[in-house]
Amino acid sequence: MMKNLSSEFFLGIDGGGTKCRARIMTVQGKELGIGLGGPANAYQNLTQTQTSILEATLEALKSAGLTADSITQMIAGVGLAGVNVPSVFAAMSHWQHPFKRMHLTTDLHIACLGAHRGDGAVIVVGTGSCGYSMVDGKSLMLGGHGFLLGDKGSAAWIGLEAVKAVLLAMDHLGEQTSLSQLLCSDADANAMSLLEKMTHARSSDYAQLAKHVLIAADANDMVAKRILSEGADYLSALAAQLWATHPKRMSLIGGMSAQILPWLSSDIASKISTPMSQPEYGAIYFAQQKEKTFLP
Amino acid sequence: MMKNLSSEFFLGIDGGGTKCRARIMTVQGKELGIGLGGPANAYQNLTQTQTSILEATLEALKSAGLTADSITQMIAGVGLAGVNVPSVFAAMSHWQHPFKRMHLTTDLHIACLGAHRGDGAVIVVGTGSCGYSMVDGKSLMLGGHGFLLGDKGSAAWIGLEAVKAVLLAMDHLGEQTSLSQLLCSDADANAMSLLEKMTHARSSDYAQLAKHVLIAADANDMVAKRILSEGADYLSALAAQLWATHPKRMSLIGGMSAQILPWLSSDIASKISTPMSQPEYGAIYFAQQKEKTFLP
Repeated sequence: MMKNLSSEFFLGIDGGGTKCRARIMTVQGKELGIGLGGPANAYQNLTQTQTSILEATLEALKSAGLTADSITQMIAGVGLAGVNVPSVFAAMSHWQHPFKRMHLTTDLHIACLGAHRGDGAVIVVGTGSCGYSMVDGKSLMLGGHGFLLGDKGSAAWIGLEAVKAVLLAMDHLGEQTSLSQLLCSDADANAMSLLEKMTHARSSDYAQLAKHVLIAADANDMVAKRILSEGADYLSALAAQLWATHPKRMSLIGGMSAQILPWLSSDIASKISTPMSQPEYGAIYFAQQKEKTFLP
Repeated sequence: MMKNLSSEFFLGIDGGGTKCRARIMTVQGKELGIGLGGPANAYQNLTQTQTSILEATLEALKSAGLTADSITQMIAGVGLAGVNVPSVFAAMSHWQHPFKRMHLTTDLHIACLGAHRGDGAVIVVGTGSCGYSMVDGKSLMLGGHGFLLGDKGSAAWIGLEAVKAVLLAMDHLGEQTSLSQLLCSDADANAMSLLEKMTHARSSDYAQLAKHVLIAADANDMVAKRILSEGADYLSALAAQLWATHPKRMSLIGGMSAQILPWLSSDIASKISTPMSQPEYGAIYFAQQKEKTFLP
């Protein structure tokens, strides 16, 4: 089945630290196919990011019933983690990509465009955390500093604080907590080997531990509750800063969003709106803005 | 000049994350020579640790006027960072070393033996932080979890907290602080490129930033003062735990000890005693304990 008769298609790419999603639409806005690729954090690994984008695109072409060489007919909107760093944006822009044209922006920008089909604000709470607003062509980015230096309220940060709390409790320099039992059972470890195991762990490994903090907090563990409150207080403050830019809507997205929402202050939580579309749609919307070719 | 007529010598090795010191003495306690080698943290790099020990030993042999082959006459007391981790201790014990005999223990143990010429307690505050006591053959180790998970009050932790504070201030999610100016001038960076620069920095890079926190605190910067107070409160609590083991003396050692001492609680600060000898002497003392050959 050969569909590549029309001369152009829109390709939306949403690249993050663990995976990369691709979506293909006709210029008339008809959905053709989707694809998935590997990690695409341009800050962490530029070459791997490009490979993952191609991988996801080729899968999407196949799912759309298009041949691999139709890749040259794609007008790509590409939103990537890490390109908020100017040097990384520059390096990625110089990619000799196979697309007809490529429009590059941050993963936050396309998430925001997807969530609101235009201006608005998003708070991303997944492995990491950050906030973003885009209002009348002016953007504000907050947080997103990585779990070593920030990312408060994120799954990785919650997991990191849990390990710290267990180590303090082990030394009798912090309150005893049911997290000691929960984390050590999970890691099949005692506190000493938990330390050994987690010292060189990645943020995604720490993020896996966040579920135990939620469980412990539900069972009224004070240490777990303090961790979640501290993280949520940061996110509430971040939301207040974003509201100050007067976005028309605000969404909470990412893998921890449902779990952390009840911990946000009520005035912030009550004003959170459901995202309208996925980030890949935002990426296509971004490409359309740049091409000034809007869908009907 | 050939001195290697006696059949045995004591070699004391003090191995840490940045360097390794060696000291040679006769069995009668006469000092013969000293040497310096590279990093010797057995947890971080086992092969490099062994190379650094040999490097320091060969330099000490030379300074003692002994030939390189006298290395086989050395009874070595070796104190190393990282061998508190059981698997690392085991791996290091299997080293096919060139010494007559090797007695292995932690850097903390030899620091404690050196500081008190016997039982006692030490708080190490350098790049990292930890506490140790040895009383009647029972040891207690506290902290030392690395700057990602602990090491509160250490130079690396202080530097890390300073960068976090600058990033929060940049986002208007934390109090404004003179640290922003101090850290960015140092790194020849703005806050965004400071982040880029520090994301993959090592603990020793963060430790270099601690001096700015001391300067800012002297100038009454509240953020800097809070960082130092929080770190010092942890160290005071750690000291209280160590006193509970009833050591006869307690010393504060490491590159940050003089700077952090004024921030400790007065009851803790007033009971800090000056170390009697360097850790390499402690390493020799440890070997003598194991050999049951005490100096006169």
